[in-house]
Amino acid sequence: MAISKLSSSHLWPTNQESFPYHPINRRKFTRKVMPISAVDSRTVVIGLAADSGCGKSTFMRRLTSVFGGAAKPHKGGNPDSNTMISDMTTVICLDDYHSLDRYERKKNGVTALHPTANNFDLMYQQVKALREGIAVEKPIYNHVTGLLDAPELIKPPKILIIEGLHPLFDPRVRELLDFSIYLDISDDVKFAWKIQRDMAERGHSLESIKASIAARKTDFDAHVEPQKEFADAVIQVLPTQLIPEEKEGKILRVRMVMKEGVTYFDPVYLFDEGSTISWVPCGRKLTCSYPGIKLFYGPDTYYSSEVSVIEMDGQFDKLEELIYVESHLNNISTNFYGEITEQMLRHADFPGSNNGTGLFQTILGLKIRHLFHQIQQEDKEEQQEPLHHRHATKVF
Amino acid sequence: MAISKLSSSHLWPTNQESFPYHPINRRKFTRKVMPISAVDSRTVVIGLAADSGCGKSTFMRRLTSVFGGAAKPHKGGNPDSNTMISDMTTVICLDDYHSLDRYERKKNGVTALHPTANNFDLMYQQVKALREGIAVEKPIYNHVTGLLDAPELIKPPKILIIEGLHPLFDPRVRELLDFSIYLDISDDVKFAWKIQRDMAERGHSLESIKASIAARKTDFDAHVEPQKEFADAVIQVLPTQLIPEEKEGKILRVRMVMKEGVTYFDPVYLFDEGSTISWVPCGRKLTCSYPGIKLFYGPDTYYSSEVSVIEMDGQFDKLEELIYVESHLNNISTNFYGEITEQMLRHADFPGSNNGTGLFQTILGLKIRHLFHQIQQEDKEEQQEPLHHRHATKVF
Repeated sequence: MAISKLSSSHLWPTNQESFPYHPINRRKFTRKVMPISAVDSRTVVIGLAADSGCGKSTFMRRLTSVFGGAAKPHKGGNPDSNTMISDMTTVICLDDYHSLDRYERKKNGVTALHPTANNFDLMYQQVKALREGIAVEKPIYNHVTGLLDAPELIKPPKILIIEGLHPLFDPRVRELLDFSIYLDISDDVKFAWKIQRDMAERGHSLESIKASIAARKTDFDAHVEPQKEFADAVIQVLPTQLIPEEKEGKILRVRMVMKEGVTYFDPVYLFDEGSTISWVPCGRKLTCSYPGIKLFYGPDTYYSSEVSVIEMDGQFDKLEELIYVESHLNNISTNFYGEITEQMLRHADFPGSNNGTGLFQTILGLKIRHLFHQIQQEDKEEQQEPLHHRHATKVF
Repeated sequence: MAISKLSSSHLWPTNQESFPYHPINRRKFTRKVMPISAVDSRTVVIGLAADSGCGKSTFMRRLTSVFGGAAKPHKGGNPDSNTMISDMTTVICLDDYHSLDRYERKKNGVTALHPTANNFDLMYQQVKALREGIAVEKPIYNHVTGLLDAPELIKPPKILIIEGLHPLFDPRVRELLDFSIYLDISDDVKFAWKIQRDMAERGHSLESIKASIAARKTDFDAHVEPQKEFADAVIQVLPTQLIPEEKEGKILRVRMVMKEGVTYFDPVYLFDEGSTISWVPCGRKLTCSYPGIKLFYGPDTYYSSEVSVIEMDGQFDKLEELIYVESHLNNISTNFYGEITEQMLRHADFPGSNNGTGLFQTILGLKIRHLFHQIQQEDKEEQQEPLHHRHATKVF
């Protein structure tokens, strides 16, 4: 495969060359030979890290919805494929890069959270290829059988979202991400949610739930959680502070930690950028039912990085509350007044549509759309420059 | 004196008739016979209540300054007169309405704080007369001798400010006020200030200071403090909450409680009117030295009245901090950007110029200027209406 020949051909949505699954193609790609066309720009890559069962799929549905159209599984492909495809986005699940299947993990005594159970070389090479407009044959981890199925062809989309336990683990993969998110569910809330799902809905015992949490905790703390440091945005889900001793995980306090200085990502703020504000919107103009809504905004430091934090405690009972809060947020990258409210109403049945998880997931969707358009614009401008100029800027 | 004859003559600044000191003229004045001229409007009356030594005089100097020109004592009058006159304002001290002199009070065992030591009938009649454009012969309480001196002539000014212990005590006087303020110094701060002044500067003992506070406390609590309920604005001066256990009264937390629904007075707010906000302006755009500045705004209830509260804790170290805070306050009735900052810098030597006392006193000065212009405008419009229409609106 002569990559250099591709530099001016249309690679999306047709004419892709596929990046073979085996053997791994180790040819070195440089930005210089990135496929460029007059119409299409390179694939934008977004990483989403979170523990399993922490609302990643809801987040993905919200994100896809912002770009229009719903995400669907591969048409005619493996029915157990984890990939979701829409007009603009392809979401791949990083479980597909498990190097050990369920039985091998059991035999070797490692969890899926451990790096040795995952093939980061392949993850890196395939994400890199997709980013550069090259289709790949991606393995499939079958969650039903616990085995690795035959690979599926993934064509480079406009926006590639890699979601799973380790999108930020390998420094080479991190380098490929245009934006990254970590969904950080506090232990209290995680426990409350697991109780709700596994005990109330599936009839598990409290002891077995506690044991399953404990079994994952060591590897989670060692290999998943440290990725927070590298995320451009972290959504933290915590118990409310509006009601003392509320532990049921029904009313949530949700914080979004946004890194400063990320290209094409301007953190959301309340009223006065860079200062510290707490705001109870409920009052004379807006009436709310107990326990109300409280927002917070301020600068902070997170793993030695300068960040801005926006927080919402409580939940929306009425449409007025949602639009009132939206109308006071700045840098939310909406295309029209009330777009967040419209998005959240459209998916009112999704979990978290009445609280900060839905609000901040929707906002991140809009921010990613903005980032995508900025990158597209940048690519377009680069392509319109004279060729010698283009080369000159890309030499180093 | 035939009051009805005055109804269309110019009463200010010349042609006043004086309201005699003795005997009290008990003729009933009605709004119908208020003197009206084509140019001048009636005297606007402001009440300022506070304990002695609580910064009333500083407040008066700030207020007078907003209207331009400095307040001076009566030219050629009693050198111990308490009255201060500027182009637009006359400030009278309500101590002048003491009915008992220092020796009579001592003999009867009453303090100056007790109603029986004050002549509210005369206070009412003279304030009413001045409000209606009629000069009065006001008594003078001589603070040096403790005696009542011969009265002085007070001409009706554009703005009459009555300041002292009881401007809101008598319901008849309250009715005459276009706006009223109560300066509420917390016991902690009052004590710290008294220690500073009486112990450090005058060499009094701690015991004598405590005794003098205790001696006044019963009457103060019974007859002065209850006036808070009737004030349109209350400025509360409290110890800071930025430093735990700070009791020296050097760093202050100052709250301004503003009654809702007062004609021509729209409460100041931060960012979002009617909601509850706390704001630390110090951050990325503004750096502050320890312990920084914190503001609060929100709706509240005060003596069963609906109020808005604005609070500032901490102090300004640099000009940038003052202008930054000013630029984020709304409804401050400035004539130009930065007017509060300009006023506070002009009087940087006044006590409280670097904290919330100076800030809120200055703001109230601007609000009173606005109120004055609104009343002037209203009078002007009334005077331009056809005569029969005017009468029609004033019949009841």
